[in-house]
Amino acid sequence: MIDNSNICAIATTPGTGAIAVVRVSGNDAFSIVDKIFVPSAKGKKVQEQAANTVQFGAIADGAIVIDEVLVTVFRAPRSFTGEDTVEISCHGSFYIQQEIIKLLLSSGCRLAQPGEFTQRAFMNGKMDLSQAEAVADLIASQSEASRRVALQQMRGGFSSELASLRERLLWFISLIELELDFSEEDVEFANRSELTVLIDELVAHITNLTASFSLGNAIKNGIPVAIVGHTNSGKSTLLNRLLGEERAIVSAVHGTTRDAIEDAVNIKGIIFRFIDTAGIRSTDDEIENLGIQITYSKIKQASVVLLMVDITDSDHKICEAIANILENINAERQCLLVIANKTDLDNDESLAHRLAQLQLPVPKKDIITISAKHNINIEQLSSALFSMINTQAIDSNETIITNTRHYEALQNALNALHRVKNGLATNLSGDFLSQDIREVLHFIGSITGEISTDEILGNIFSRFCIGK
Amino acid sequence: MIDNSNICAIATTPGTGAIAVVRVSGNDAFSIVDKIFVPSAKGKKVQEQAANTVQFGAIADGAIVIDEVLVTVFRAPRSFTGEDTVEISCHGSFYIQQEIIKLLLSSGCRLAQPGEFTQRAFMNGKMDLSQAEAVADLIASQSEASRRVALQQMRGGFSSELASLRERLLWFISLIELELDFSEEDVEFANRSELTVLIDELVAHITNLTASFSLGNAIKNGIPVAIVGHTNSGKSTLLNRLLGEERAIVSAVHGTTRDAIEDAVNIKGIIFRFIDTAGIRSTDDEIENLGIQITYSKIKQASVVLLMVDITDSDHKICEAIANILENINAERQCLLVIANKTDLDNDESLAHRLAQLQLPVPKKDIITISAKHNINIEQLSSALFSMINTQAIDSNETIITNTRHYEALQNALNALHRVKNGLATNLSGDFLSQDIREVLHFIGSITGEISTDEILGNIFSRFCIGK
Repeated sequence: MIDNSNICAIATTPGTGAIAVVRVSGNDAFSIVDKIFVPSAKGKKVQEQAANTVQFGAIADGAIVIDEVLVTVFRAPRSFTGEDTVEISCHGSFYIQQEIIKLLLSSGCRLAQPGEFTQRAFMNGKMDLSQAEAVADLIASQSEASRRVALQQMRGGFSSELASLRERLLWFISLIELELDFSEEDVEFANRSELTVLIDELVAHITNLTASFSLGNAIKNGIPVAIVGHTNSGKSTLLNRLLGEERAIVSAVHGTTRDAIEDAVNIKGIIFRFIDTAGIRSTDDEIENLGIQITYSKIKQASVVLLMVDITDSDHKICEAIANILENINAERQCLLVIANKTDLDNDESLAHRLAQLQLPVPKKDIITISAKHNINIEQLSSALFSMINTQAIDSNETIITNTRHYEALQNALNALHRVKNGLATNLSGDFLSQDIREVLHFIGSITGEISTDEILGNIFSRFCIGK
Repeated sequence: MIDNSNICAIATTPGTGAIAVVRVSGNDAFSIVDKIFVPSAKGKKVQEQAANTVQFGAIADGAIVIDEVLVTVFRAPRSFTGEDTVEISCHGSFYIQQEIIKLLLSSGCRLAQPGEFTQRAFMNGKMDLSQAEAVADLIASQSEASRRVALQQMRGGFSSELASLRERLLWFISLIELELDFSEEDVEFANRSELTVLIDELVAHITNLTASFSLGNAIKNGIPVAIVGHTNSGKSTLLNRLLGEERAIVSAVHGTTRDAIEDAVNIKGIIFRFIDTAGIRSTDDEIENLGIQITYSKIKQASVVLLMVDITDSDHKICEAIANILENINAERQCLLVIANKTDLDNDESLAHRLAQLQLPVPKKDIITISAKHNINIEQLSSALFSMINTQAIDSNETIITNTRHYEALQNALNALHRVKNGLATNLSGDFLSQDIREVLHFIGSITGEISTDEILGNIFSRFCIGK
């Protein structure tokens, strides 16, 4: 089952840099590298090199020296993979990196699959599956929040939580299954009321975990924000302000933006993915109407809808199309913020009057007056967006589920727990009860990889980059 | 003069990879990293870590853990820079790399200038200037030949050659300058005929070195090959064959290629930079005539001119414009190869006849018949190109000059040597002789950096990437 073949890969970003690192892992990692490594005068063979030390030397193909390098030796089981591992730090020419890989391939290595180093760490018990998945998340992290949540998971926060839940259930199931051995004697080793308390506790706990997924998913993938409004209300200008660059084409011509443009802004460690959309108006232009259709579908995906209103607009009403959008906002999972734009074109007194005329469908606190063009109050808008996120959970290092696979497993565990609960309420016999509890254990175990299939592992590790 | 401030930089290719390396060097490298490094339970502070060892731990900003990392410690003077150095190997998220750099900057480091680590290696006597320059060449190397020449130079091949030349001259100059101290006594410590022999030897040696520059420059920058010919003779198709991809737009319409397209092909370790050019014909199209003008200038820069002839062309003559090009080829530094294309459209018998009719201005051995369209004899053309390069010099590890700065210094040294030679022939007095010899020493010393200015160093190291 465990593959000990010798694998190698470039572990640093592909391309040319000052230095690059080539990683070799497997049973024969040391003897393979010794075939191509020439130590300096007082140096040693890699096989004789002490663990966790680094030595200078050259990589050579027979008499031809390829590069001068540093080799670092990690000895099993005290390495990332749990196997003998060598890291070759070479000059960062992409050509040299490839030459070293070629030499390793002809010396007994094969090229590592994506994520194979981490997969071996999992197979060799260096980390559980949810920790291995967090390694990929950590590498992909692009914001403070996603980094923190991934690191917390990689360091085993989630794993130890699941392990303790599992342990408490295992104690009960062992008692129930003991009852089955004595089934003719009608004994009850497992106290049913104690079990009911435990199940209630588990349901509450796992419900909390699944509830954290919407935040976790937002942290990992960014929070989708749709900017909608009449044509020429200044949506593209606002997006440019938020992005700090001229991303969308801005012009005074109505209907300039036809494609849905997406870009991400990092506000205090949280990624917001802004979706600029076609302006809403009645038009006969087919392509523009197509853009409006896209707007509708984008709004359904958004967690936050920013309604942009031009308060200098003489037609002080929201058109039917926008009213329609607002009516269809799902209050449970979507927030609405109104942006009253172009305050610069007006004075304070008439501003309140005009806002009243607009009859906006939100409380006053959810209306922010800005000038996108003159960069007024953009900071306040950013803060309003940030305050919509429950960052307390991140700061307090609570476990936050970011992984769809974990979310689904927890949902399945929750369903099984509810069956256990019903079974307890209806005095279900021990063998059926035990079956449902086993299912809970199965789903929890699938997260940490105590229960896994080659297919699941294949799915997980194929998402990794090569070299990790 | 020597800057011991603490510098840091990302040393691996920028971007996201499996792992990345952040390098810290300077007097306080260890204490700075200790401010942000949290060793594992049995771990040590970096200051107490043994040289050339690697240890696992975490990088933390106060209570917030940024990443789990490996730190490798190199102690002065046994490090690349000659200073205390720490390499932090972190997860390859670009976000994490930047966070670690930010932490180092707020802990007492400044960001390294391009090439500053190598500059420090030079300043601390770890390598001479020509070796430091070779580090940049090695990182930039994209072919076997450029890698070998750069590595040979980095390992000190060129340096030791120059050192021995310098030493022999220094012996003579010390004798001549001793004579000046005894000038009233008219003694001659330096044997003039021995000096003449040495100067002749030096002239021969340095002439060889400067002669190697045309090969060295070709190895480093690639060999420029211009493909010229009548419109529709198949130049673009040939280029595509050589590139192995559809790089140039190919069409049957005369005059398709207007821009000079450049692309590089690696033939057995040598880079050839192919320049596709506008077809030559008499035309009134202004843009096309502009293309033909570019063709003329491109041909002047080329080391190899490939004249492409369509042997199915019923007009069995070379037009005046091409005849003009051929006449202007500089036989001393340019090679001409004739490619008779579209052999597939003809049979062997008439082929010889047609070739004769064309009255091509080269010996038969320099005519290669191919079919670009049907991929016939392309391999033979590649071999013919490769055989134009003196690869023996590369294989025998002879010193090859690749650097314009070295070439100019050697030329200057050669001029001064000729003055010394003339001086010896005309019995020039010791003080003038000594002045010329000092100049030779100056120019040789400027290559290895014994003589250097901040301006020269600035020019050299600013070409490096950051992190090296």
